[in-house]
Amino acid sequence: MAKHFGDRLCDAVIAKKSPLIVGMDPVYSRLPEEVRKRYGSNNDIEAVIDATIEFCTRTLKIVAPYVPAVKFNIAYFERYFWEGVEAYYSLVAEADSLGLEVIGDVKRGDIGHTCTAYADAHLKDPKYKSLNIIAPDAITVNGFAGADGILPFADAASESNNGIFVWIRASNPSAARLQDAVTKEGMPFYQILAEITNEIASQPRRIGENGYSNVGMVVGGTTAENTAVMRARYPNVWFLVPGFGSQGGSAEDCVKFCKPDGTGALINSSRGIIYAYEDDKYKAQFGDNWEKCIEQATIDSCAMLKNAMQK
Amino acid sequence: MAKHFGDRLCDAVIAKKSPLIVGMDPVYSRLPEEVRKRYGSNNDIEAVIDATIEFCTRTLKIVAPYVPAVKFNIAYFERYFWEGVEAYYSLVAEADSLGLEVIGDVKRGDIGHTCTAYADAHLKDPKYKSLNIIAPDAITVNGFAGADGILPFADAASESNNGIFVWIRASNPSAARLQDAVTKEGMPFYQILAEITNEIASQPRRIGENGYSNVGMVVGGTTAENTAVMRARYPNVWFLVPGFGSQGGSAEDCVKFCKPDGTGALINSSRGIIYAYEDDKYKAQFGDNWEKCIEQATIDSCAMLKNAMQK
Repeated sequence: MAKHFGDRLCDAVIAKKSPLIVGMDPVYSRLPEEVRKRYGSNNDIEAVIDATIEFCTRTLKIVAPYVPAVKFNIAYFERYFWEGVEAYYSLVAEADSLGLEVIGDVKRGDIGHTCTAYADAHLKDPKYKSLNIIAPDAITVNGFAGADGILPFADAASESNNGIFVWIRASNPSAARLQDAVTKEGMPFYQILAEITNEIASQPRRIGENGYSNVGMVVGGTTAENTAVMRARYPNVWFLVPGFGSQGGSAEDCVKFCKPDGTGALINSSRGIIYAYEDDKYKAQFGDNWEKCIEQATIDSCAMLKNAMQK
Repeated sequence: MAKHFGDRLCDAVIAKKSPLIVGMDPVYSRLPEEVRKRYGSNNDIEAVIDATIEFCTRTLKIVAPYVPAVKFNIAYFERYFWEGVEAYYSLVAEADSLGLEVIGDVKRGDIGHTCTAYADAHLKDPKYKSLNIIAPDAITVNGFAGADGILPFADAASESNNGIFVWIRASNPSAARLQDAVTKEGMPFYQILAEITNEIASQPRRIGENGYSNVGMVVGGTTAENTAVMRARYPNVWFLVPGFGSQGGSAEDCVKFCKPDGTGALINSSRGIIYAYEDDKYKAQFGDNWEKCIEQATIDSCAMLKNAMQK
């Protein structure tokens, strides 16, 4: 029996001495020429998918020694229809085999029975023997429908010893008009959603040995003003923090989601790492060696977060 | 060049003289014994998918003469991994070939680039010649991230002459705590989202000949108190109304989303129609003939809505 999801994350973050996770958002046109040219035309879906799989597999192997987890954004696979979805599941298994915790960034959300169907797809290993795949360790969930829309995912995660992260506050500019709207009672909308999520997260059966729930929250690193408040208010919760790097969240802002022992938050960088070979700084250092660029960007990002935590 | 999506819906609703649409949420264990037994064990994913495709294909042919559109809930296909996703696309094409408008109930939502990737998957015909599929005419979108999260879908829909329906108000009980929370300015949260959506929907380039936008709204039929207000406030918008039938929305409540000419709303019934053969009333009338049960339930549902509109 695998450990509780919250405890697995503690172990992984402590072992790697970093909260950094790498977001896999592969865009074919940005993949290294060296990889693309091996497979043929970008009008051939097999060529596109094979190049994407090769790029992701090699990137996973580069980052695995440094980070506790990776996050696959399924949209970048789903755009290649069922063939892309098959590639997504094969990469989840590849990441798992490298000892990484794996998060499926699927942001699924609906009500009742539909949540259960989505949870079957994304949180449970298939019962069909012909499918040699596994579910990711956790997925992101869109909790717009409230508790009814979150509980079926939380329960499926508990059953399969996995986790979920409910999307509480987005990291994009236009989210504020909606998510920061304040109620008559003085509570911003995102906080109502956080309270609903925390009520589910705090149910004793969801809490592991280290005190963390298997129900976490996605909160953008670009919305730092209330970070310390949320960290204090939801002590049982792992935060998944997008927005570090390309999206403009600073290391100092992001690490406010971590507890003093370094656990409690996974800080995601996607484009800043997987496209590091487009960055003049790394190009000057490593030329066409895109793998070295990705490795150095991973090391540098870990160091930035470490420095920020020591401040 | 196909007509504008809003005009296609007008034509379809007027031709069928009904706003009823049928929601395809197939659950294997509830499929007719006659269909399931033809394919073998429920532990064999091919058998499960083949039975699901047969059931859906036959159901589409039964309902096509009566309704303007069908809605496929992708969760019920995605639960069968990439093989289910392939089945989803094949059924979208089947429904299209029957002359139906087709809505993909995918409730995708994220920010920026990720929305564009999802839109590639769900709103645009693939550019890959090896994939002989088409996109549905419209999809549902989760607009939690605000305008940034809606615009990429709206723009993709406009480019491909399709539509979107933004999920504004859910039909489940727990949605109220979140979506009906009222701001200091006296506006419930769902209305802020409706305003954001309407600003996008009302852009002149999105409006068709009949005055409807290709950006619509999903609003639950179980939340009738503000229905007439929304119909009046958003005259350019097609409403997609879940909750009729099994979820408890009455015909009288649902038709308040229609304009006097009968256009302006698509009213969805899923389980009440596709599982009509589980209903004692229809069993007594048609015995094991599940197709007759579905046909009669479709006819009855159309009649209920027609009567309600004449009140």
